[in-house]
Amino acid sequence: MTSGTTTEHTREVVHEAARKARIASRVLAGLTTAQKDAALHAAADALLGSADKVLDANVEDLLVAKSAGIEESLLDRLRLTKSRVDGIASGLRQVAGLPDPIGTVIRGSTLPNGLAIRQVRVPLGVVGMVYEARPNVTVDAFGLALKSGNAVLLRGSSSAAHSNVALVEVLREALATQGIPEDAVQLLPSADRSSVTHLIQARGLVDVVIPRGGAGLINAVVRDATVPTIETGTGNCHLYVHSAADLDMAEKILINGKTRRPSVCNAIETVLVDDAIATTAVPHLIEALERHGVTVHGDLPGLVPANQKDWGEEYLTLDIALKVVEDLDAAVEHINTWGTGHTEAIVTGELAAAHEFTSRVDAAAVMVNASTAFTDGEQFGFGAEIGISTQKLHARGPMALPELTSTKWIVWGEGQIRPV
Amino acid sequence: MTSGTTTEHTREVVHEAARKARIASRVLAGLTTAQKDAALHAAADALLGSADKVLDANVEDLLVAKSAGIEESLLDRLRLTKSRVDGIASGLRQVAGLPDPIGTVIRGSTLPNGLAIRQVRVPLGVVGMVYEARPNVTVDAFGLALKSGNAVLLRGSSSAAHSNVALVEVLREALATQGIPEDAVQLLPSADRSSVTHLIQARGLVDVVIPRGGAGLINAVVRDATVPTIETGTGNCHLYVHSAADLDMAEKILINGKTRRPSVCNAIETVLVDDAIATTAVPHLIEALERHGVTVHGDLPGLVPANQKDWGEEYLTLDIALKVVEDLDAAVEHINTWGTGHTEAIVTGELAAAHEFTSRVDAAAVMVNASTAFTDGEQFGFGAEIGISTQKLHARGPMALPELTSTKWIVWGEGQIRPV
Repeated sequence: MTSGTTTEHTREVVHEAARKARIASRVLAGLTTAQKDAALHAAADALLGSADKVLDANVEDLLVAKSAGIEESLLDRLRLTKSRVDGIASGLRQVAGLPDPIGTVIRGSTLPNGLAIRQVRVPLGVVGMVYEARPNVTVDAFGLALKSGNAVLLRGSSSAAHSNVALVEVLREALATQGIPEDAVQLLPSADRSSVTHLIQARGLVDVVIPRGGAGLINAVVRDATVPTIETGTGNCHLYVHSAADLDMAEKILINGKTRRPSVCNAIETVLVDDAIATTAVPHLIEALERHGVTVHGDLPGLVPANQKDWGEEYLTLDIALKVVEDLDAAVEHINTWGTGHTEAIVTGELAAAHEFTSRVDAAAVMVNASTAFTDGEQFGFGAEIGISTQKLHARGPMALPELTSTKWIVWGEGQIRPV
Repeated sequence: MTSGTTTEHTREVVHEAARKARIASRVLAGLTTAQKDAALHAAADALLGSADKVLDANVEDLLVAKSAGIEESLLDRLRLTKSRVDGIASGLRQVAGLPDPIGTVIRGSTLPNGLAIRQVRVPLGVVGMVYEARPNVTVDAFGLALKSGNAVLLRGSSSAAHSNVALVEVLREALATQGIPEDAVQLLPSADRSSVTHLIQARGLVDVVIPRGGAGLINAVVRDATVPTIETGTGNCHLYVHSAADLDMAEKILINGKTRRPSVCNAIETVLVDDAIATTAVPHLIEALERHGVTVHGDLPGLVPANQKDWGEEYLTLDIALKVVEDLDAAVEHINTWGTGHTEAIVTGELAAAHEFTSRVDAAAVMVNASTAFTDGEQFGFGAEIGISTQKLHARGPMALPELTSTKWIVWGEGQIRPV
């Protein structure tokens, strides 16, 4: 088969899956909360019951990856263990425990002409997910989609293909036992890379695509998509140590934001130090960073020389850029120029500075005297999250169940017509 | 100059305007409600004071259009009169009277660790509008953008170029008198069609583009855009006359929805009649439609023969498609297949049918015993609207001030860090 006909075939496979998902989504939209929660618990039970099958499949993926010479950090993302499967299953039970967003009345009124109007949360319909190695995303996305009444098309990494096939098989069987259409969750082929393209261009068949992964994946999806997308998870996050900062607090937040988990999107990538306290603060913070194994890039003597590339870099490693800024204005300017609109933080004891910073910095989350690591669905009290949106439309910041919904205006009348 | 360098030049003009808009947007985001309202009244005053200048420019557009043989209905959309300018100015004053969405706290809580989190409405930033002949959209979009703290880039029709230049000049001068950056409103060149492309592909410079106009314009913008867009105003709206319908009520709603203003997006384009009452209802409704000058397309004898094209057609004229459907299931199926997700209506006296219809029909607005003509920002009590969204992401249905905003999480702490 030539590549062209492969692509043509893959397109038909993706479109057919989307059409089936649409049909399933009509049923999902009408399920009660009790039905959805029962299905989530059934899926959790099924995962535990089929753990061996899932782990066997995962071993196949691990063997392929190892023989391809994949590095250990990626292998670890790919790896499932009995305890990880337990964790994934209990994640489904947690989602079952969250409030059901569907049917919530957001606004409503009775118009002067007697029409009763109300805006109600409804599912989006068909949600596409494009993601990288971690197989837990397969189940997490299924759980959040089901609870919010959406059918989901999963396009995972080919490196996790065996694991994902096994997981989705278990989930679909569990749905069938509950009388819910199995097509509520479908795995798209990952062997042919073009399935991503067909998914993100299935306008009219798919309501939204959410990419989860590195900046490269996200940019490619957002650029080539004709289906609406939600940009997630690129975080070039800054900590600004203001002239009125408590230096010990700044150190504690800096070390937590940088070193807690360097590979996550809410990790600190640049620290800005106010010129007024630079003489004491800079050596203090550099010493603390180096003590924690962090390499500091900057334009000061003794640091790894930094250039513009460093200001725009999301290291995701134990590296950080450090810059002395003249004042709060310069800090805000730097952040609004180089930041990715994820999470930005200030440490200060001065109320006016805190207000200025929170109102002028343009980001999904702005922290005063708190670690950037708190931008997270679970930390915010939403339960599981589907990703952290860094775009301004639809959802910004941690996306949980309500962010997987749309709305519908329902209007009840008694024969009202509109005057000409 | 070759076409390539023209496009290159136009791109630079559009990008430069977007960069200036971004700078202006930072100032707009910090304005108080009183400052914005004062500017809206100043702009209204300026429009009235410069009405002659605006009308003179409009005459130039009209002369060009007439000599190009433009039809009268388009000329009428393009035409400004003293009374229309009055109406546009009072539209600005109405927007000044609307509540300011910026700063509204949508959600918030104090987390167990003491962090105070709140989600606050903030402006989107830079909004692009692409629209057709009507010059009033220039001022309406400016007013809604300003009140919601956004800078706006206007890409109007080349046929309204003189009018738009005059209007934007007046608006910018009014802003200057109020100490607000003039770049809050900028008109993009319309002579070179590529300015639309450059606007909708100015990713990172423009936060959202809203196309307003016919289906062709909207589809082209949505398809080619890399900037997030909001699909508006394509309405293939249905009225389903259920077996338990009051036939006089059905007639009244049908005639209102079809004939009140056939060219608007919430007009009825197809009437579905339940088979159980077809024998009496169909002749009754056809008679009423024909009495009001409506041409009925359908697969019944005596009608203009209809085919699949008619089910998908947004006539926007005194034409309608009529189809007999077996039952409510068939009606919902037809609507979810052929509708554009704008407004769908049922006439019925049966509660269960009304519930089924409102929950299963997938549209921005679903009406029970009311005219489709009510889907409108002003009718819903929102004041002016920027368009009616038919997409599911971000906004669905009439878009007013809150729909022109994004959100930001603001988190206040006292040094909290996240446990590893």
